[in-house]
Order: sequence, then C-alpha cells, then structure tokens
Amino acid sequence: MTEASPAPVSVIGLGLMGAALAGAYLKAGHQTTVWNRSAGKADALVAQGATNAEDISEAVAASDVLVVCVFDYAALYSILEPVKDSLRGKVIVNLTSGLPEDARGAAEWAQGVGAEYLDGYIMSVPPGVGQPQTLLFYAGDADVFAKHEATLKVLGGNSVHLGTDPGIAALYDLGLLTILWTSLAGALHAYALVGSEKVPAAALAPYAEAWITHVVLPSVKGAAAAVDSGQYATSVSTTALNAIGLGKLAEASKAAGIRPDLVLPIKEYLEKRVADGHGDEALAGMFEVIRSPE
Amino acid sequence: MTEASPAPVSVIGLGLMGAALAGAYLKAGHQTTVWNRSAGKADALVAQGATNAEDISEAVAASDVLVVCVFDYAALYSILEPVKDSLRGKVIVNLTSGLPEDARGAAEWAQGVGAEYLDGYIMSVPPGVGQPQTLLFYAGDADVFAKHEATLKVLGGNSVHLGTDPGIAALYDLGLLTILWTSLAGALHAYALVGSEKVPAAALAPYAEAWITHVVLPSVKGAAAAVDSGQYATSVSTTALNAIGLGKLAEASKAAGIRPDLVLPIKEYLEKRVADGHGDEALAGMFEVIRSPE
Repeated sequence: MTEASPAPVSVIGLGLMGAALAGAYLKAGHQTTVWNRSAGKADALVAQGATNAEDISEAVAASDVLVVCVFDYAALYSILEPVKDSLRGKVIVNLTSGLPEDARGAAEWAQGVGAEYLDGYIMSVPPGVGQPQTLLFYAGDADVFAKHEATLKVLGGNSVHLGTDPGIAALYDLGLLTILWTSLAGALHAYALVGSEKVPAAALAPYAEAWITHVVLPSVKGAAAAVDSGQYATSVSTTALNAIGLGKLAEASKAAGIRPDLVLPIKEYLEKRVADGHGDEALAGMFEVIRSPE
Repeated sequence: MTEASPAPVSVIGLGLMGAALAGAYLKAGHQTTVWNRSAGKADALVAQGATNAEDISEAVAASDVLVVCVFDYAALYSILEPVKDSLRGKVIVNLTSGLPEDARGAAEWAQGVGAEYLDGYIMSVPPGVGQPQTLLFYAGDADVFAKHEATLKVLGGNSVHLGTDPGIAALYDLGLLTILWTSLAGALHAYALVGSEKVPAAALAPYAEAWITHVVLPSVKGAAAAVDSGQYATSVSTTALNAIGLGKLAEASKAAGIRPDLVLPIKEYLEKRVADGHGDEALAGMFEVIRSPE
C-alpha cells in the first residue's frame, strides 16, 4: 500500500542541504514542517509556506515521515533520543552523512523505538535537490521504501533502493566520494603541473574533459570487470611501463615545486605489483595491493 | 607549402605503439619503411607491405619523415647519434614518452644536426591509432606542423599543435596521465571499499560512470576556473566538511583492511587548508597546497 500523496513531511535540520530538502517538499505541495536546533534558519522556508515547529516534539507530531539531515550521528541522537517515545510508527528517513556502521546502528536504534528506518544519501549538492535526474541512494526495508517512494522521489527523481542492509547506501556514497576526491585532487595536481610552466588550467581543462570521457571512464568501467574476475591481462598498457611513468611524474612534480604526495602512493602500488611479478599486467591490478595491505 | 600526399614515412621503433603507427601508415597508403633495434618485430608489417630496413641508415635514407617511438630518450639518442650526419633536412617526429625537458633537449639536438623536429604524444592506446577521433598532442615549429599535418593526422584525426615550445606536448601529456592515474587508483580504492562488504565492483561501476559524468567532470572543469582566478568561494560544499569526510574515509579504509595511502594526502591537503583559515572555501582551494610545498 502506498501513502496518500502528497504526505505531510517534517524536515529536521536546516543546514544548506536540509533547507534544500524542505524547499523541494514545499514546491511539490507537501504540508511541510521544519525544525532546526538553532533558531532563524526557518524564516525563508516559512515565507514559502512551511510550518516552523516550536520544538522537536511538535516536528515529530506533525508528520509520519521525518526527514533528518543533521551534521552527524551524534547530533541525530541528541535530537531524537529525548522524543524517542513519540517515534513509534513514524518513518525516519535519515539523510545524515556517516559510515555504514553508523547507519546500521541507527537502524537498530530506530527498531528499538518502534520506528521504521531508511538510510539515504543525496548524491548531489543542494541546488540539485528536487531535480528529476538527481541520484539518491537508499538502504533499508524494501517495503518501507516502496510505500514512501513517491515522497522520497520528491528529493530526486533517480532515487534507488540499493538493498535491505541499512549500511549499503553509506558504502556506495563513500565509494563515489572517493572517486570525486581522488579525481579532483589529480586534476588539481595536473593544473599545478601545467601552471608551473605558465599554462593556465583553462588551457588543459577541455582536453581533461575529453580525456575523462574517452579514456578515464572506459578505464574505470573496464577495471570493475578486471577486479571482479581477478583477470589483469593487457595488450595495451602494462603496469611496468606505467610505474616508470609514475616515477617520472613524481620527479617532475618535485622539480616543479609541486607536492608529490598524491602520486607517490600510486607509484608505490605499481612498483609493488612489478616486484610481485605482475609488471606485464594491466594497471587495474593495483587493486590487489590496495585491498591487501602488508 | 604542404607535402605531396601520401609521403613516404619511416617508422623507427616497433613496440606495441610503433607497430600500430606503421600499421596506420600502411593502411593509409604511405610507402612505409620500418626498423627496430631487435629483429623479428617487422614481420607482420612486411606482410602488410612495409619495407624492413636493413639498418637505421637505410630507414633514415628511405623517407623525409622519420616517426620515432622508442622506449626512452636514451634509446632515441643511441639510435640516432650514429646517423646524425644523414639527418639534415629530415623531419623527426618524436613520439617517445618523456618529460618536457627531454623534448626540449631533443629539439636542440635536432637543430644541431640540421633536422626539423616535432614532439608528439599519442593520447590513446595502440588500438586507437589511426582513428579519426584519436587525440595527439604536438609541439614545436608551427610551420613544420602545418606542412606535415596530413601525414601526422594519419595517426589520429584529432592532432593538435599546442605551441612552439617543444616541451609543451609532454607537459599536457603528463597532466592528463596524472588525471588517469589518480582517477583510476581512486576507483580501485572505491571498488576495494565496496568489495570489503562483498559488493562486486560491477554493482558500483554504473553509478561511478554517472557520477564521473555528472559530478566529477563539472568539478574538474569548475576547478580550472577557480584555480586560474584564485577564487574559491562556495555555497555548496566546503573544505571543512570534506576534510571530515576524508577523515572518515581514511578510518573506514583502515577498518576494512584497505591501504589508506592514496586518500591520506588529500586529507592532509584539506586539513592544511582548514588550518590556514580556508575551511569555508571550495575543495578546489587545495590547489594552493599542492602547488606550494613547505
């Protein structure tokens, strides 16, 4: 059975992201109650039609669906513990960032107070909230997700239920953030390299875009198949040759006065693969070094 | 004045890439002479119509355009030094990998022996050679590039002359390789993270692809503008918040038995930005740490 639409929603936590969530519900015609630990964050939302709860009890009482987006899990517990007796039968949609173990702990805690629980991750910055293509990862009870899918999709049309393990959305989020952080740091390192010769980043950027689309993306995709099969044969680019390239990159970075820190671990991973007898295999084989520390 | 087409070409060095280069010239109807320091590499090319030079002198004498793709610059000099007196008026198209300073040295050396010199980088694996969309970077004399453009474009339709500084192609190549290595290592780290919870890489890969296209690419592009202007204001995602995320990633990696080496420098870069008072600025601000070591 799916809920009557649009369902009343309470948004707890009005940081940049929480405010965007409440804004999306208001725009979609949901009766929206908002609450934030410190005052003053609700004014713009009230002007758009939100009800500002006097206290957390009022926010919990106002809706069956509680969307929680606060700074961390400590904040989540400090807000919800005092009202735990009023959470029975509520649906806690927890969009607070944390690790898989945090999400699993919160799911257990919610079960203990008789609430339903979904753990979610917004794979976008606040301006992306409410767009049809915006991706959100969800984890937890599949029936709860199905029942509230229409309400959840207000926040992003591409809302995906990844599995019943409540930690799985946090795990996927951590994986994608890893890719963003490493890729962006790598691009900044590249900009520093060309910048050391007075080439502006904007001159490299169009080539970087094409390169990411036509070379990096297929490599990342191909590496998934290699990793899952453990097959690292290559006829195009060997680990040994790339290890030499990484050595040159590290030296060139130092010579240009650029911190080599980011590229040194990759050099070491590849050199370890070569030392272990896998120099003629593909780059993706460094997976075996990454996942198996000494 | 452009050359008569198709011009005779000699390909010196028949590794995986050199053989692909010779193959592209044969396919395009160029009279193609090949030579490799060790024997036996030319057989398949001879079967396709190539002439196998008896020695390097014969390879040099056969064509005005000499395409050189050997292991490194030491190999290049050891091959060309003995025949330097026969290089006057030849065009050396050097596709050997190296650093900007290597290319500049080779350009000077070529000038010393009376040869024209272009330094090039094939931004593709060997199977991409000869395709219309394949990118090659060239650096050196603009007139030489213009004169031989048709011959050069046989190797890849998207052949770009970046500038007259002979080191500039090597610099762009190093930048793009940095992006490939860091992004791929990051994706492998992500695959190791999800793998630690028995999630196959193939389950994360489709999300990683969409994420790279819709989040990483715009970030890399946006970072170029930020870096060039030195403006790191953000209203969507602060360095301080991401520094906390990196800390969690490092801890989660260790807890999962995954080497944190790749993510630790990024954590340190962000923490330094926060310590320097830039915690409320965008991630791209870590550029300032990367390019300015202590």
